[in-house]
Amino acid sequence: MDSRGGGIGHWISFEGIDGVGKTTQASRLAEWLVQHGRDALLVREPGGTALGEALRHMILHDVEIHDAWAEFLLFAAARAELVTTVIRPALAAGRWVISDRFTDSSIAYQVFGRGLPWGPVDQVNRWISRGERPDMTVWLDGQPLTARGDDRLEQREAAYFDRVQEGYAWLWAREPNRIYRVPANQPAEAVSDAIKEALIRRWPDLERKGESP
Amino acid sequence: MDSRGGGIGHWISFEGIDGVGKTTQASRLAEWLVQHGRDALLVREPGGTALGEALRHMILHDVEIHDAWAEFLLFAAARAELVTTVIRPALAAGRWVISDRFTDSSIAYQVFGRGLPWGPVDQVNRWISRGERPDMTVWLDGQPLTARGDDRLEQREAAYFDRVQEGYAWLWAREPNRIYRVPANQPAEAVSDAIKEALIRRWPDLERKGESP
Repeated sequence: MDSRGGGIGHWISFEGIDGVGKTTQASRLAEWLVQHGRDALLVREPGGTALGEALRHMILHDVEIHDAWAEFLLFAAARAELVTTVIRPALAAGRWVISDRFTDSSIAYQVFGRGLPWGPVDQVNRWISRGERPDMTVWLDGQPLTARGDDRLEQREAAYFDRVQEGYAWLWAREPNRIYRVPANQPAEAVSDAIKEALIRRWPDLERKGESP
Repeated sequence: MDSRGGGIGHWISFEGIDGVGKTTQASRLAEWLVQHGRDALLVREPGGTALGEALRHMILHDVEIHDAWAEFLLFAAARAELVTTVIRPALAAGRWVISDRFTDSSIAYQVFGRGLPWGPVDQVNRWISRGERPDMTVWLDGQPLTARGDDRLEQREAAYFDRVQEGYAWLWAREPNRIYRVPANQPAEAVSDAIKEALIRRWPDLERKGESP
């Protein structure tokens, strides 16, 4: 069932810990949708706007951030700008939006990972999303496939990533209808196939190539 | 009356529209406190930390921001980092903190100026301040003394600044005991004198030069 009704866009977000193959799978899905005649837009978070990309660079490489609230609010600022200037217009125009991360990342990383309280973080996420949310969220559940890099976020200790994983498991248990869990420790092709099948179960028209919906 | 009790620090924030002489008066007060043997720390917002200065540069010069929430959350991120790493330690060490802006700026600029709802903005400000707030706020009430510059925030239309002024008037009416209003359209020396007199009325020991309180 499409929560936005016929003729209006669809939104799939991808979630999971860093290095689990999320970015690859998000692009593959966007490509597949385009091959099936759909108008798909791939965005990443933080990013997708001038502000978002500048903040992404700042968070990953440049500037030391000591306060967990400060970290969350930077992601939230990037998200607010992305929702207003990119995601809402795309959904209003009937496009398929594929986003590499959305609000679930704040719960997994800043609430479970860094210890911020859930209620306030959830509240800020609701204010800035203005009622928009993904129709489906693909959670790639697994250990990182790639070696941890040398940027600041990736260097954090293993216990931190275990807490982030717990956060995703908690979200999935809470919203099993929205969040589709895919075991990520299998060949990329098998992961892609599982995702496409889940989409076709929900939107059977996707099996047909065509312009709409 | 000192809300933090004897031996603990004091905090004076400065507020007012851009160009009203706020930065000058804040530094003059910090100098005067140091001349009176007090340990004073002058900070500006956004700024005062590596993150804050990077965001200040981004906000004023670099990156286009379309969403009012995004703008507020950037200021809030800088503020969270400043409270945790600079203001709280300084107050705990018994210093005088002089801040060029704090949470009142969000109410004046983003709520009155840009139309964000007061409740959520106030709530975020409370979360990130963790119970700390200025003992006294000096509101420099007046029209800008300096010509408007060429940075983005300063170029906004006059109606916007009128709404910001209304915001400060609303805050002052709401918390007259915390907020001390000084007419800003008088010689800088007269403004400084009024501010020093207000501080001495509240902390009479300041008339004596010495190491404490």
